[in-house]
Amino acid sequence: MSSELRQRLFAELDSIRLIDPHSHIEPKSAASKSLADILGYHYYTELIHSAGMPRTEIEDPGLDPKEKVRRLVARIEPLRNTIQYSWLLELAREFFDFPADEHLTTSNWESLYDSAAKKMAQPDWEQQVLDRTKLDAVFLTNNFDDPLKGFDTKRYVPCLRTDDLVFHLAKPEIRQRLQQATNTEVLDLESLRHAIGRLFEHFTSKSARACAISLPPHFAPREPDRSAVRHSLGPVLKWDDSDIDSTLAEDRATIANFVFWTLAEYCAEFKLPFDLMIGVNRAVYPAGVYQGQDLYDSRVSLIQYKDLFNAFPQVTFPISVLASVTNQELVSYAWIFPNVVTNGHWWYSNTPAYIEHDAAARLEAVPQTKQIGYYSDAYKLEFCLPKFAMYKRILAKILAERFIIERGWSEQQAIDLGRRILRGNVESIFNMA
Amino acid sequence: MSSELRQRLFAELDSIRLIDPHSHIEPKSAASKSLADILGYHYYTELIHSAGMPRTEIEDPGLDPKEKVRRLVARIEPLRNTIQYSWLLELAREFFDFPADEHLTTSNWESLYDSAAKKMAQPDWEQQVLDRTKLDAVFLTNNFDDPLKGFDTKRYVPCLRTDDLVFHLAKPEIRQRLQQATNTEVLDLESLRHAIGRLFEHFTSKSARACAISLPPHFAPREPDRSAVRHSLGPVLKWDDSDIDSTLAEDRATIANFVFWTLAEYCAEFKLPFDLMIGVNRAVYPAGVYQGQDLYDSRVSLIQYKDLFNAFPQVTFPISVLASVTNQELVSYAWIFPNVVTNGHWWYSNTPAYIEHDAAARLEAVPQTKQIGYYSDAYKLEFCLPKFAMYKRILAKILAERFIIERGWSEQQAIDLGRRILRGNVESIFNMA
Amino acid sequence: MSSELRQRLFAELDSIRLIDPHSHIEPKSAASKSLADILGYHYYTELIHSAGMPRTEIEDPGLDPKEKVRRLVARIEPLRNTIQYSWLLELAREFFDFPADEHLTTSNWESLYDSAAKKMAQPDWEQQVLDRTKLDAVFLTNNFDDPLKGFDTKRYVPCLRTDDLVFHLAKPEIRQRLQQATNTEVLDLESLRHAIGRLFEHFTSKSARACAISLPPHFAPREPDRSAVRHSLGPVLKWDDSDIDSTLAEDRATIANFVFWTLAEYCAEFKLPFDLMIGVNRAVYPAGVYQGQDLYDSRVSLIQYKDLFNAFPQVTFPISVLASVTNQELVSYAWIFPNVVTNGHWWYSNTPAYIEHDAAARLEAVPQTKQIGYYSDAYKLEFCLPKFAMYKRILAKILAERFIIERGWSEQQAIDLGRRILRGNVESIFNMA
Repeated sequence: MSSELRQRLFAELDSIRLIDPHSHIEPKSAASKSLADILGYHYYTELIHSAGMPRTEIEDPGLDPKEKVRRLVARIEPLRNTIQYSWLLELAREFFDFPADEHLTTSNWESLYDSAAKKMAQPDWEQQVLDRTKLDAVFLTNNFDDPLKGFDTKRYVPCLRTDDLVFHLAKPEIRQRLQQATNTEVLDLESLRHAIGRLFEHFTSKSARACAISLPPHFAPREPDRSAVRHSLGPVLKWDDSDIDSTLAEDRATIANFVFWTLAEYCAEFKLPFDLMIGVNRAVYPAGVYQGQDLYDSRVSLIQYKDLFNAFPQVTFPISVLASVTNQELVSYAWIFPNVVTNGHWWYSNTPAYIEHDAAARLEAVPQTKQIGYYSDAYKLEFCLPKFAMYKRILAKILAERFIIERGWSEQQAIDLGRRILRGNVESIFNMA
Repeated sequence: MSSELRQRLFAELDSIRLIDPHSHIEPKSAASKSLADILGYHYYTELIHSAGMPRTEIEDPGLDPKEKVRRLVARIEPLRNTIQYSWLLELAREFFDFPADEHLTTSNWESLYDSAAKKMAQPDWEQQVLDRTKLDAVFLTNNFDDPLKGFDTKRYVPCLRTDDLVFHLAKPEIRQRLQQATNTEVLDLESLRHAIGRLFEHFTSKSARACAISLPPHFAPREPDRSAVRHSLGPVLKWDDSDIDSTLAEDRATIANFVFWTLAEYCAEFKLPFDLMIGVNRAVYPAGVYQGQDLYDSRVSLIQYKDLFNAFPQVTFPISVLASVTNQELVSYAWIFPNVVTNGHWWYSNTPAYIEHDAAARLEAVPQTKQIGYYSDAYKLEFCLPKFAMYKRILAKILAERFIIERGWSEQQAIDLGRRILRGNVESIFNMA
Repeated sequence: MSSELRQRLFAELDSIRLIDPHSHIEPKSAASKSLADILGYHYYTELIHSAGMPRTEIEDPGLDPKEKVRRLVARIEPLRNTIQYSWLLELAREFFDFPADEHLTTSNWESLYDSAAKKMAQPDWEQQVLDRTKLDAVFLTNNFDDPLKGFDTKRYVPCLRTDDLVFHLAKPEIRQRLQQATNTEVLDLESLRHAIGRLFEHFTSKSARACAISLPPHFAPREPDRSAVRHSLGPVLKWDDSDIDSTLAEDRATIANFVFWTLAEYCAEFKLPFDLMIGVNRAVYPAGVYQGQDLYDSRVSLIQYKDLFNAFPQVTFPISVLASVTNQELVSYAWIFPNVVTNGHWWYSNTPAYIEHDAAARLEAVPQTKQIGYYSDAYKLEFCLPKFAMYKRILAKILAERFIIERGWSEQQAIDLGRRILRGNVESIFNMA
């Protein structure tokens, strides 16, 4: 039977030890301290807000964590159908012995809160979560000026996140941080380029395994025109904070393109893959909760990255797309360009119907060595388990139906493909060996 | 077994009494008078025309209804695969005892025609259809100058349709109707705004439950600039009919935006949801049959409505998208914006493959209180049964496979979710209690 | 059981004799001469290159066919998951007795190579392939100046391919070929139009059954302005080869539009269907292997062809779209426009997940007489078998699940629909009777 086959495959996939190639984990507080860290995940706050709870009640400053959880649970009923709510229940059951057939309600939240708090207070809680999740390593999202000190970079793998450098260099605060981090006065094209190089030195010396950035739908990088860059740098690098908005959008775009292209050049030099997360518009709903304001315009094409992919054949680009309608382009570009690799199922596409459609298309047409199956995108370690479990169930379904039943593969072949997608390619693509 | 489970779920969903939240039913002739009303539905005339029957043979003026049906049936064979044809057979079987294993052919159409005519002539035919369909109420699509008299507005719920006001105010005929309906001379911004307000007074006094509009793919509303509006009103409000085309497109667009925005303001004031049906291009095929001329450009994004959603947090926007490729944006916007609600499966997306893909994505990621499962869009009451039945079968499939089998839900939980999507949310979102 | 039903349906569909309505077969060397012709198919070279093999190793000039196969097999392991690799194994098993449970490896490739070479050397090999594939006829892709001599045009059906005429008329080499083929000096609008007419005379006299072209995403034909055409013809028709790039892009676009529109006029006059393959960008990855450089921008809409469809009601347009996200528009346009027909699953959409989604949507909403199920797009005859087999398996799945199980069709009805899609419509749409 297909459902038994799926369960057997899931069990095998679930036994694979993982490396999570993209997260927002804070390495010094990787695990949660209370259920407020769990329910404070933006998926819950934004969905509960969307279902009617005012932002002010959610983000009440100085709110006690327990009271915050109480308030959120009182409004969580409309989310019961969502896959995000299912992560919460699976997490609660797996880590905190929450009963299998219960919803989270105003009647039972407090005992869950207390039992979770007790477990989270155990000194080895972080290790318990890693063990239960079979997690060997987790990639981080580090600010460019992160000292990367005080944690094990083999377990928590640094990753140079560059959105601020590319899109906010006109902000004096960003430039100050850049100057401080690199001990370089940023005055012109050469010193800016030098400073960025220092970041790569620092990050690679700390075992960073990727450079990463999220990009708006309209972004279309091309080889910079140096004289245009010099011309635009003046207005962008001026230090008067109040004038940022008056900096010509065109100048800022010229510099964004230059910094982005420079990052790609350093990725080539330092042999770092460059994770591109393509398609997000920031602050579309500015009255939304924290991290619950971004949306997108699905009218984006990878043709916008044609020049980049051609100019940097030696750089691997693991690519995430925000909308499922862009996934077929991703499949096709990864099928043609040696340096384009498919990477996980991002954010608004990280729900089962889209994962299934998108992953099936990748598995059928992209070489098996060029697919990174999944990353958690999590802020707290506890979420890696239910999010990866969701993916593994879908992967088991695709392997069962589309490979074993429809194409006559053996179970072992299917499991081997799953292992490569889940683990092997993370090691090979990010040079983890 | 999954197929038995699906049947059980369908039976439960099928027992739910319905409110149809969008139709084109004429309340004073809600049910059909002959099979010509059924086969004259644009789905059949346009598909039969598409399959080769000349428009002139279909729209022959003064054609006898029976002869019209004879002609259409003679050319209907190419449609047998379509889901629209399956509505027809289901309707014929359910209402007119058409045999289960027959196609509609030149041999059997006449007996169906006659037996249908006999039933339709019964004085309680309309009530029979409502009872069999378990239909408590049906939303209408009323012209802005509809007196809304002579029918039970609890059963046939008025809905203020505003396409003409927004897009055709330059036509003297439209303005004349507006002036007459509101007893207001429309001379300037203030009087135009006042007249629109009178429409809301009239409609809400007659228990209207929504304002509605269909919108072309390029439409992108933003807060009006009052001085630009005043400047554009002159050319648009002039009364010389022959000059409409010479009215600058820019002026007309300025006024369209202003009227649209004004409608949203009144929706806030009168607490009416504003149904947006996004993405249709009118008269793409002008030689097509009546109502069979419209198509679309799927390159549309909900980012075009960003300003609107932000400006009117107190207005609920039930949104329909014409193309399935826009559905993921709809899911995401409904997940983030409290005032965005998913609404049915519209027109070219109202076929099983697209409904299944789109509904599954919504059920996984939009709070269950923010989804209106389905509306019939029907012109005649008899179509509510087969169209809702199609949806309920797909909903049963999604609930069986994606919730009960894959997520371990109980059947009761799944049925409760279905009930909410099908009925409960229509009542809560349109304030029907 | 659904899987037995699928197998029964597949067996029935597989017994249907085929006409392949689009290929790149060379009629005088239709079958392969060695396994190098098979592994040299761009799907393998581009995927193996994408997986890491340098282009220079693949396209080494003067490379011995056997050595080429050895090299490619040594790098083929990363492709094992792909559907393209499955075509290869199915082909090897069906034609060359390759064992059912083996992969193609460095250990077994040579014996396959040798046994294939032996079979391919048999004088009736081409006929063997046609028989085994149950292939009655194959459409070709002929250059406009192909003499169409020396082959049986009933078996290998000529098709006038027009990309060069439309997009490369500024190249002296193309115009020289046009002048030679038509014995016409091309000096102005009239002589250009005349020359194109001569091509139609030649092709139809040789039993051509279609005119065809592939089109970039930005193309949007409209009725030509004759004076603009005259104005642009001068720069485009000049004979200085070095100046092509300096020809204004606008002039070239004007002429492209004119030639395209003229082709449509001749399709009307000569009663030829005009195959449009919409959406490809050429040479996006210029460093790629031969035929492995093209990609696309999925932001394309059939609204761009509105004027064309309206202007030529008497021309049938079988349409292929490159991206699955355009498929719903194709379904809708074929549902409304009598002259729009759906045609196969092209290139990057020719993988199971996309075929299934796209074909299901077509089968539900496009009249059954207006759908051409599949074409091979093959360069060598041997590929028709596994490519059509893939499609027939998916078609069997859709018919089983969506028509027999969900809509209660009989198996015979489903098979009849499949037969029409696979064979009958090719005959009727291309006037093959």
